[in-house]
Amino acid sequence: MDDRELLDIICPVLGGEACSDDCAVLPEIKGIPVVSTDMLHETTDFPSGMTNWQIGWMAIAVTISDLASMGALPKYLTLAIGLDREDRLNDIIHGAQECCLKFGSQYVGGDLDAHTELTLVSTGIGVVTDGKPVRRSGARPGDLVGVTGIQGRAMAGLKGDRRYWRDLCEPSPRVLEGIAIRQAGATSMMDISDGLAISVHDIMKASGVGCELSRSEIPCLPDYKPDEALMMALFGGGDFELLFTISSIDRQILPKGTSIIGAVTEKQEILLDGNLLPAEGYRHNWNH
Amino acid sequence: MDDRELLDIICPVLGGEACSDDCAVLPEIKGIPVVSTDMLHETTDFPSGMTNWQIGWMAIAVTISDLASMGALPKYLTLAIGLDREDRLNDIIHGAQECCLKFGSQYVGGDLDAHTELTLVSTGIGVVTDGKPVRRSGARPGDLVGVTGIQGRAMAGLKGDRRYWRDLCEPSPRVLEGIAIRQAGATSMMDISDGLAISVHDIMKASGVGCELSRSEIPCLPDYKPDEALMMALFGGGDFELLFTISSIDRQILPKGTSIIGAVTEKQEILLDGNLLPAEGYRHNWNH
Repeated sequence: MDDRELLDIICPVLGGEACSDDCAVLPEIKGIPVVSTDMLHETTDFPSGMTNWQIGWMAIAVTISDLASMGALPKYLTLAIGLDREDRLNDIIHGAQECCLKFGSQYVGGDLDAHTELTLVSTGIGVVTDGKPVRRSGARPGDLVGVTGIQGRAMAGLKGDRRYWRDLCEPSPRVLEGIAIRQAGATSMMDISDGLAISVHDIMKASGVGCELSRSEIPCLPDYKPDEALMMALFGGGDFELLFTISSIDRQILPKGTSIIGAVTEKQEILLDGNLLPAEGYRHNWNH
Repeated sequence: MDDRELLDIICPVLGGEACSDDCAVLPEIKGIPVVSTDMLHETTDFPSGMTNWQIGWMAIAVTISDLASMGALPKYLTLAIGLDREDRLNDIIHGAQECCLKFGSQYVGGDLDAHTELTLVSTGIGVVTDGKPVRRSGARPGDLVGVTGIQGRAMAGLKGDRRYWRDLCEPSPRVLEGIAIRQAGATSMMDISDGLAISVHDIMKASGVGCELSRSEIPCLPDYKPDEALMMALFGGGDFELLFTISSIDRQILPKGTSIIGAVTEKQEILLDGNLLPAEGYRHNWNH
């Protein structure tokens, strides 16, 4: 098959005119747009055992999570597919489409290419219609530090704990939580897909502040030894939860499932129970 | 270096807040948005001898060409980079940035990943503020068929003709021409990056019509034998020119540098001087 024949697999899934032009034509966008793009590929991003459907889902979910972290509604997604084997395409497309539909987004088009290593790049356009996108740089001393969900699930899945395999392979970006946290008055926000510890460093650095975290407040997996669960929560990546800061007055209107884990300080240090927390987490590295 | 250190190469080039959040925050978009994404990678898209700067330029130009083919103004570009060697990054970023600036676009962000094969995916958002994007599907019997520029230049470059090497490696998408052709009243349009012949098939199929082309009207390279020049014009890919249809009344207001090469017919056949023109051009193929 060549790419025009493979398009016959994609076009019926996307529907409408998604495949018929050089571009997708979108409805007019009302509000402030945000845009994000994410590259995933086999060797670094798709653990062995992950299905093609899950790979398609994941490729969309990572970008929807970036849109969610600004408090935006995910609107339009494109997916560029560097395909190594044509028999993988159908499931990838369906996984991607289901993830879009689940989070109220439209899969509007993409590109298809032959590649030696399966490589997926999604790009998302989100919109904030009632206020401003939340940036990383707005945390102020005295703000509280919060997170959504329970950390360490993806890491548990990666370690082979079957109970958390789907958390690893089919992450649910926190779209509604992101919007609710923005509306509650969050001063800064980002997702913690690279890991909680490194994300705390990122957000505080962007804001020119520090923070003190309390170990006992970090929501960890209950079925692991406390020390192990904490390490997984702090340094395991792949949890598509949100990290944010908010004034203590505004915390009353935070959505359920969020935890306050510390407070922002003027001093630019990241402390956990009084000790420096290293900026460790997932990083790509070019010196293999 | 890891990706956070490499970002120190990217961020000063992009400027402003491009690297500081999970998303780029865009100004409000007035008009009809169009979006396109394109994947390029070393083995299939970057001929040997192409510089890293040219690779960055090319990665942006292909997507700007897609936006141009709708008659849209290219506004915002993202670039996801799967990088094989860190020393390539600086030149790639600068080539991408210069291409954005040349065509009035803003390079607003991207993603950076380690990859075994250099892989670049650009996504562009364009806008049409005064009318509607031109689709492939609007050609009507009786319309004229037109193209911009001279076909076959990229193919000549690929064959080793140094006079056309830059046409191959630093294509200039027809942004202003696309807008002018839309404003003149084009009924359909697309770019011919896959080749002229296959693009004629695509646009006529999308419109449910056929056409008769005249060999003598196709703008070919003057410094090749006529038969060879024609083959290069029809079946060589990589020329980022525009193919369009327009009513004969509107042809008077077409921009300079466009050629009328035929007319749209009701019968769904693509003819060149009365003979069937094969739908050949550049296609990816999964059965190597």
